[in-house]
Amino acid sequence: MIGKGDHCGVFGIGLSPRAAQITHHALYALQHRGQESAGIVAGGEGGVEIHRGMGLVSEVFDADVLGRLARGTDLAVGHVRYSTTGESSLANAQPLLVRYRRGHLALAHNGNLVNAPALREELEREGSIFQTTLDTEVVAHLVARLSDNGPEQALATSLARVRGGYALVALADRKLIGVRDPSGIRPLALGRLGKAFVLASESCAFDTVGAEFLREVGPGEMVVVEGDRLRSLPALPPGRPALCVFEFIYIARPDSNLHGLNVHAVRKELGRRLARAHPVAADIVTGVPDSSISAASGYAEAAGIPYEMGLVKNRYIGRTFIQPCQEARDLGVTLKLNPLRKVVDGRRVVLVDDSIVRGTTSRHIVRLLREAGAREVHLRIASPPYRWPCYFGIDTSSREELVAAERDVEEVRRLVGADSLAYLNLEDLVDGVKAGGLCLACFDGDYPVPVFDAAGGR
Amino acid sequence: MIGKGDHCGVFGIGLSPRAAQITHHALYALQHRGQESAGIVAGGEGGVEIHRGMGLVSEVFDADVLGRLARGTDLAVGHVRYSTTGESSLANAQPLLVRYRRGHLALAHNGNLVNAPALREELEREGSIFQTTLDTEVVAHLVARLSDNGPEQALATSLARVRGGYALVALADRKLIGVRDPSGIRPLALGRLGKAFVLASESCAFDTVGAEFLREVGPGEMVVVEGDRLRSLPALPPGRPALCVFEFIYIARPDSNLHGLNVHAVRKELGRRLARAHPVAADIVTGVPDSSISAASGYAEAAGIPYEMGLVKNRYIGRTFIQPCQEARDLGVTLKLNPLRKVVDGRRVVLVDDSIVRGTTSRHIVRLLREAGAREVHLRIASPPYRWPCYFGIDTSSREELVAAERDVEEVRRLVGADSLAYLNLEDLVDGVKAGGLCLACFDGDYPVPVFDAAGGR
Amino acid sequence: MIGKGDHCGVFGIGLSPRAAQITHHALYALQHRGQESAGIVAGGEGGVEIHRGMGLVSEVFDADVLGRLARGTDLAVGHVRYSTTGESSLANAQPLLVRYRRGHLALAHNGNLVNAPALREELEREGSIFQTTLDTEVVAHLVARLSDNGPEQALATSLARVRGGYALVALADRKLIGVRDPSGIRPLALGRLGKAFVLASESCAFDTVGAEFLREVGPGEMVVVEGDRLRSLPALPPGRPALCVFEFIYIARPDSNLHGLNVHAVRKELGRRLARAHPVAADIVTGVPDSSISAASGYAEAAGIPYEMGLVKNRYIGRTFIQPCQEARDLGVTLKLNPLRKVVDGRRVVLVDDSIVRGTTSRHIVRLLREAGAREVHLRIASPPYRWPCYFGIDTSSREELVAAERDVEEVRRLVGADSLAYLNLEDLVDGVKAGGLCLACFDGDYPVPVFDAAGGR
Amino acid sequence: MIGKGDHCGVFGIGLSPRAAQITHHALYALQHRGQESAGIVAGGEGGVEIHRGMGLVSEVFDADVLGRLARGTDLAVGHVRYSTTGESSLANAQPLLVRYRRGHLALAHNGNLVNAPALREELEREGSIFQTTLDTEVVAHLVARLSDNGPEQALATSLARVRGGYALVALADRKLIGVRDPSGIRPLALGRLGKAFVLASESCAFDTVGAEFLREVGPGEMVVVEGDRLRSLPALPPGRPALCVFEFIYIARPDSNLHGLNVHAVRKELGRRLARAHPVAADIVTGVPDSSISAASGYAEAAGIPYEMGLVKNRYIGRTFIQPCQEARDLGVTLKLNPLRKVVDGRRVVLVDDSIVRGTTSRHIVRLLREAGAREVHLRIASPPYRWPCYFGIDTSSREELVAAERDVEEVRRLVGADSLAYLNLEDLVDGVKAGGLCLACFDGDYPVPVFDAAGGR
Repeated sequence: MIGKGDHCGVFGIGLSPRAAQITHHALYALQHRGQESAGIVAGGEGGVEIHRGMGLVSEVFDADVLGRLARGTDLAVGHVRYSTTGESSLANAQPLLVRYRRGHLALAHNGNLVNAPALREELEREGSIFQTTLDTEVVAHLVARLSDNGPEQALATSLARVRGGYALVALADRKLIGVRDPSGIRPLALGRLGKAFVLASESCAFDTVGAEFLREVGPGEMVVVEGDRLRSLPALPPGRPALCVFEFIYIARPDSNLHGLNVHAVRKELGRRLARAHPVAADIVTGVPDSSISAASGYAEAAGIPYEMGLVKNRYIGRTFIQPCQEARDLGVTLKLNPLRKVVDGRRVVLVDDSIVRGTTSRHIVRLLREAGAREVHLRIASPPYRWPCYFGIDTSSREELVAAERDVEEVRRLVGADSLAYLNLEDLVDGVKAGGLCLACFDGDYPVPVFDAAGGR
Repeated sequence: MIGKGDHCGVFGIGLSPRAAQITHHALYALQHRGQESAGIVAGGEGGVEIHRGMGLVSEVFDADVLGRLARGTDLAVGHVRYSTTGESSLANAQPLLVRYRRGHLALAHNGNLVNAPALREELEREGSIFQTTLDTEVVAHLVARLSDNGPEQALATSLARVRGGYALVALADRKLIGVRDPSGIRPLALGRLGKAFVLASESCAFDTVGAEFLREVGPGEMVVVEGDRLRSLPALPPGRPALCVFEFIYIARPDSNLHGLNVHAVRKELGRRLARAHPVAADIVTGVPDSSISAASGYAEAAGIPYEMGLVKNRYIGRTFIQPCQEARDLGVTLKLNPLRKVVDGRRVVLVDDSIVRGTTSRHIVRLLREAGAREVHLRIASPPYRWPCYFGIDTSSREELVAAERDVEEVRRLVGADSLAYLNLEDLVDGVKAGGLCLACFDGDYPVPVFDAAGGR
Repeated sequence: MIGKGDHCGVFGIGLSPRAAQITHHALYALQHRGQESAGIVAGGEGGVEIHRGMGLVSEVFDADVLGRLARGTDLAVGHVRYSTTGESSLANAQPLLVRYRRGHLALAHNGNLVNAPALREELEREGSIFQTTLDTEVVAHLVARLSDNGPEQALATSLARVRGGYALVALADRKLIGVRDPSGIRPLALGRLGKAFVLASESCAFDTVGAEFLREVGPGEMVVVEGDRLRSLPALPPGRPALCVFEFIYIARPDSNLHGLNVHAVRKELGRRLARAHPVAADIVTGVPDSSISAASGYAEAAGIPYEMGLVKNRYIGRTFIQPCQEARDLGVTLKLNPLRKVVDGRRVVLVDDSIVRGTTSRHIVRLLREAGAREVHLRIASPPYRWPCYFGIDTSSREELVAAERDVEEVRRLVGADSLAYLNLEDLVDGVKAGGLCLACFDGDYPVPVFDAAGGR
Repeated sequence: MIGKGDHCGVFGIGLSPRAAQITHHALYALQHRGQESAGIVAGGEGGVEIHRGMGLVSEVFDADVLGRLARGTDLAVGHVRYSTTGESSLANAQPLLVRYRRGHLALAHNGNLVNAPALREELEREGSIFQTTLDTEVVAHLVARLSDNGPEQALATSLARVRGGYALVALADRKLIGVRDPSGIRPLALGRLGKAFVLASESCAFDTVGAEFLREVGPGEMVVVEGDRLRSLPALPPGRPALCVFEFIYIARPDSNLHGLNVHAVRKELGRRLARAHPVAADIVTGVPDSSISAASGYAEAAGIPYEMGLVKNRYIGRTFIQPCQEARDLGVTLKLNPLRKVVDGRRVVLVDDSIVRGTTSRHIVRLLREAGAREVHLRIASPPYRWPCYFGIDTSSREELVAAERDVEEVRRLVGADSLAYLNLEDLVDGVKAGGLCLACFDGDYPVPVFDAAGGR
C-alpha cells in the first residue's frame, strides 16, 4: 500500500520525576503533526504504564490518567498520530508497547518503512503473531528474535534490515533511545531540561516544556540515555543526507528550527523568491491560513504589495463529523475558511499557498475568493509542482491523485480556475532553504533510499 | 452578582427542512463566542427536540444526535456559551427549553439582564420554581404567567419588565422570534437562506451556511418568522443606541460586519491611529494572536515598521486540563504562546494587544519576549484603559480586578514590565470605528441603561 | 392515563455523617421495588447534592459519586423506580429536587396521585412551569405557592389537595419528612440507626443498614426529623385504613415485615390455605421463582406433596436488550426460566404462582413444563382473580388487559393451558394475611379513595 | 502462580445465520460461570468480528454491537470469565483473537494450563511477543509456529505439549473446533440447534437457546464442525478420566446435566446422605442461597425437619463498588444476605452450605443467624473438607488460605463459631454423585495430571 505513511510527532524524556507530565505538555506542542490519536508510555523501577486514545491530546488525557502515568515513573515516550487510511483505529495508536522475554519495549515512530510488508510476511512465516498493522511492529518482532546484548544493540541490528525514513524514540530497560534513519529523512532533535535529556520531532516542543536545544540527532545515529548520561552510537551506516524538505514547506511549526534554520524565516524567504521570480500586478497579497502566512508575508514584502487578511480560518473545525460525500467535503472547506468580502471585493488578489497536492482545496479557495468579489486571483505556490508520491512518512496517495504528476502548469491553472498560476523554482527552493542534504523526491523523483527492491516489489 | 455575564452566540432559522444541520454549521462559525457549552432546539409539527452538552460544538454533536434533531423538524435555534463562573454546569447550557400551558418555549440568549435577581425573587415569592440559575429563565416565567395572544406578545410584555443588554432568539408555536434590547447593546443580524429567514449574533455565521445578510435587527425591534413571512414589531420603546464597542475591539470575528463595517478593517484602522498617536522607534511590530493581528498590521503599516510573526499560538490548547494554581495558569500561557526567538532576538519589539483587562497575560507575554531575547518591548493597546465593569454580557469581574481601574498608565506599565506602554485615545476609538451609537461604558463608565435601581439594588 | 403508576422504593435518613453511604446501601435492599432508575439527594449545612441515573443502583453510583454526595452532608433521601411507560427517561428519575424561594425541596415518592392531571392543568394555567411528567412535581408546585410556616406545614396543606396512595419522603430546610396517604395504601416504616432516624418503604432496608425497626408511619401521619428529634403531626384526616394487599402477595421482599407480619410467613400461610381449599393429586409442587417460592412451600407442606425445584431462574437477565416483538418477549421468558427436565419429566406438577395479571407469563410457563415432560400441570394461584386496575401505584394497564377481568376461571384455565386452575378465595386471603385494613380493590373493585371525581374525570 | 485459575464459560456454534445472537443468549445462561468479562468472536466469509468488555453480558453487549457481530457471520464463539487476580483487565478478556499467517484464530477457554509459564518462557526465548497474560495465548503461539495441514491438526499438535485441565472452543478457517483435556477435567457438551452444531460448558445453555443435547465431548477428543458436518478426532491420548467434582458441588447450574446426571438431583442426594451421616436435633433446616438450596432441601427431607427460608439473598449486589477493607467486605455479606428473624428467632437451625473454602463467609453467616435470634446453629457441609488447591481452573489461593488445610473439624468449628459442624464423607460424595471418573484432588490431593514437573517447577 504505497503512500500509507503518516505524519507523526514523537517525544521522549529520560530520568525526570515529572517525565509523564512533561511529555504530556510536549505533545501539545507537537499536536499539529497528528490529531488522530495520542499516547504516552511512562516507565519506572516498577514497570511501565501506557495510555493511548483516539483524538486530540486534550481529549485523550485527563488528571486521572496523568496521575496514573506519573506515579513512580521517570522515563516517558509520547506520540501523536495522523493517518488518512481506514486503519485509523485505537489498536494502531502509538506508542506501541510490547512485552517480550527481556521485558518491555515501547516504540514511538514517525516515518515509514518501505520494506515492512516483506519483513512482516517473513516473520509471520516463522510464527510471529502481529497485534497491529503498524510497520513499527516489524521492528519489535525483529528485536524480540535477537539475543543481543541489550536493547540498543538489538534495535540497531533490527534497523539494519529495515529500509525507509524514520525517527524512532524507544523506551526499554530503563533506557531512553532515539534513532534516525541513515539519510535523516525525518527530523529528531536532542535537548536538555535540567539534568534530563529530551528528544522531540521538533524544537518547538523544547520551548514549550522549557528545555534547551542541544543538537539534532544525526542520520543513522542512535542516542542512548541512561540515568543522566548520554551515549552516541553510530548505529547505522550513514546514507545520503536527505532531510524531508516538506518539513520546511508545510509540516513543521513556524517557531521550530531545523538544521539551525527557523522555519518561519525559511518560508518567508521562499515567499520573497517566489515574488521575484513570478511577479504580478495586484492590489493585495493574502495567504491560506495558517501554513502559508509566512510565505505570503514574504511575497508581499518583496513585491511591495500590501499583505491583507483575505481569509479567516475557523479554529474549531478540526475533527468535525462530516459525511464522506463530495458535497460535504466541499462544505468542510466552507466551514473552515471564510473570505473577507470587504477586503477582497473588487481587488486583484495574489493568493499564496505552500503547495498543491490534489488541487481540490485550491480550486475551492479560488472559487471562494471570486464569490467574495475578487476581480482577479493569482495563485502563487511557495514550492515546486508536487509530482512524485512520498514513501517516507507523508500521506500522499498514488501518483494519479497528484494533480501535477501528469499535468503542466497551464493545465493545473485551468483546473483550479486561477487567472494565473506560478510555482517556486526548484533552484529557488534549494537556495532559499539554505540547508544542504534535502530530500526533494516529491518534486524531482530522486528518492534517497531505494523504494522498490530488485524484484520490483518493496 | 456583578459581572456574571457571558459571551454567547445565538442562531435561529425558520422553516427549512435542513434547519437543524444548518444551525449546527452556524454554531461552528460562532464558536469563538463561547466554548463552554453548545445546544440546539429543533421544532417541527410533531414537537421539539433538544440536545445540549458541555464542550465544543464538535464534541457536543455527532451524527446520531443530529439525525434525531433533524427528523421532522423545520425550525431551530442554537447557542454557544462561555462563562467563567462556577455555574458552568450542563443545567445552565442553552437554549433553555420549558414546557408551559401553551406548549414549548425555547430561548437562546446573549447578554445579561441586570434586574434578573429582583424579578426572580418576585416570581419565586409567587410560587415559581426555577430550574437553572440563568437570567434567561426569568423571561420564561414571565411569559408563562401571561395570558396574552401568542408568544410574541407575551415575550414583548415580559421583556418590557426586564433591564439589560441582550439579543434573544426564541422558538415557540411554530414561530421563530428574534429581539434586541432597546439600546441594541448586543448584536443580532437578519439574513436569508433560500426562503428561510436566519438570525445570528454575527454575520460570519451567514457566510458559513451560505446565507445572505439582509440587515441588523434594530434596538427594541422584534422580528417574527412564520412560515416564509417575516413581521417586524416595535416591541420595546427604543433607548439610546449603544452597540457594545468591545464587539469591534475583541469579541467579533474579523470577517464579520457590524453596522455595515468590517471588523478586521476597523481593527486595522485602530492600529493605524494607535501608531500615529503613540509612535516608537523599533525594529518589528508583532501582535498577540489571534485577536490583535489586525490592529498590529495596521500599526506596522502606519509606522512603517515591518510586521513580523513574533509569537506562535498553539491551536490545540483550548480546554486543557490545567490545575487551578498560579503556576499552572502561567504554564497555560506558555503552552498557548511561543515566541520566535530567531525573529525577536536582539530586536526592539512593538507588541500590539487589543486590550488589557487584568494585566496578568500582558505581563506574561512581555516576559516571554524578553526571555526570547527582545531588546525592548513596547506595549501598544488598541483600545483605551479598561476601567469599568460590564453589566451587559461580557465577563469582567469586580472593579478591583481591572488593572487600570485605579492605576495610571505608568503604574500599569511597571506592573506588566514593558519598556513603554500606550493606549488608544477614546476619541481615536470613536473616530476609528466610525459607527455612531456605541456603548463605551467600560472606558468611560457611562452606562446606557441604569445598572442600579432607585434603592441602590439591581 | 389509568394505571401509569409505578412500583418504587423510598428511603430517608436524618442527621448522620454517613447519611449518603447508608442511603446507598439501603437502596440495594429496596432494589426489587424498582430497577429502572435510582437516585440520592444528600443535604448538609452547605446545600444539597443530587445524583440520579438510569439502571441499577450498582450502575448509577460509583466511588466518585458517593464521595461527592457524602462530603459535608448529614441528611439524605433515596429512590429506586420502576415504570413500564414510555416516560422512563432520566428527567423522570427521582428524587425530584426543586429550588424555590425557601430553598431546596427534595421529594422521593412511591405511589400514584389520581388527581395529579387536574391539579397540573390548574397550576400551569396560573403560570407554573413543569420540569417533568411526574405526578410528584404537582406537590412541589403546590408547596412553592404557599407562604406557610415551614416546609412541613406547606407539605401538609398541599397534600390535602391531593388524592391517591403514596408514601413520601422529603428533605427540606435541614429537615427529613415522611408522610403517608390517609389510607396508608403504600407502606412506610420508621426506624433508628444510632441516633439517626430512618424511613424506608420496607423493613428489610433497616436490616441491611443495621437499623432497628421502631414502627410504621400511620395513615395520614407526618413525621418530621430535625436533628435527633422526631415529631409526629396528624397531617391529614385519616381515611379508611387500606394497606395494599399486593405488598404481601408480590411486591415486598420475604424478609420484610408489614403490620408486624413477616411477608414470607404470610405467603407460606396463603399457600397452605390454597392447598386445603384446592387440593389435587400430584407428584411434586413447584413455585415460580422467586416471588412464589414461599407460597409453594406452604402448599407442599399442607398438601403433603414434596416441594421440588422445577424451574431455575437466570439471575442475570434483568434489563436485557430485547426487541419489543412478541417472539422476543417469549424468548425473554425462556432466557429467564429453565425447567428441570429431570425433576419434571413424567410427573404431575402443581405449579404455584402468586398471581395472574395478563396471563401471558403463566401460559408460557405451563408450556415450558409440558415441553420438559410434565404429565399434568395444575396451576394454583396464591391470590384471588385480579379483576380491577390499580390506581395507587402498581402498574396494571387498562381493564381489558387483565385476563380475569371478564373471564371466569375455566376460561382462564383454557387460555393458560393448565390441566386445572384454582385461585385462593378472598376470605382465605383476608384470614391468611391476618391484618385488618387492607386495600383489596384489585380483587373486589372497592377502592378506598374515590378514583373518579364528580365530573367523571379524575 | 498457583491457583490463578478461573471459572469460565464457553460456547460455540457452527454455521447458523443467527450465530452471534444465539451465542449472546447462550452467554446469559452461562453467566453464573463468570461475571467479570464477556466476549464474542463471530466469523463469516468476509472475516471476523470481535467484541469484548468488562462486566455482565447485559452490560457488554447492546443492539449496535450485536448488529455488527451478526452482519455476514455464521460461526461464533463466546466466553464469560471470572478471575480474582489483579490481571482482570480488558486485555485478558476472552475469546482471544490473533491474526497469524494462516488467518484468524479465536480461542475461548475454560480451565488452566499448568505448564503454561514454562512454555511461555520458551516461546519468548524464541522471539514470540505475548499480548496478554492468559495461558491460552501459549496455545496460539504454538499453533502459529506450526506448518501443519489445517488448524485442527496444528491445535492438536500444540495441545500435546500442554498439561492441565481445559475445555477449549476455537474458530479458525471457517471451522468451529471443540476439544477437552485428556482427563476431561473441565466439562464440554455437544448439541444441535436445527442444522447447526453447538458446544457449551453446560447443558443449560442448550435449553436457553432451544438446542438439543447430543452428548459430552470426550476426554482428549476434538470435534470439528465444518458446514453442517461434524468430525471427531482422537486428538490427545486419553488420560485418567477425572471430571471436576466441584462442578456438581458448586459451579454448575442446578438445571444442567453432567455425565447424564442432573446437578440439582445430585446435590439433593448429597444433602440426604449428609443428613443420614450427621443428624442433629433441630427445628428448621435452611440453606445458603442460591448454591446450597438443593442440598439443604435434601437434608430437610432425609432428616424430617422442615425446610425454611432462613436467609434472603439480595439479587442486585453483584459487582458492588466495595472498598477493599475488612469492614467493607463484612458489609458485603450483610448487603447480600439477610436472615429472616421471624423464621430463625428462638429456633435451632441446621445451616447447610455446599463447601467451606476460607471460612470467612461461614463465620459471617453463623453470626448473622445468631444475631437474628437463632438458639443453635449447626453447620452441615455438603462436601468433604477442602484441603488442596486446585490447579485446573477453580480459583483457590494458596494452601495457607484453605481453612481446612491444616485444621481438624473441631478447629474449623470453633473458627466459624457454629454449635456443631460436620462435613459429607468422601465415600458419600463419590456414591452420591454416582459418576465414575471424578477429580477429587481438592479433597484428597490426588491430582489426575502431574502438577509439578521432574525439576520441581511447573
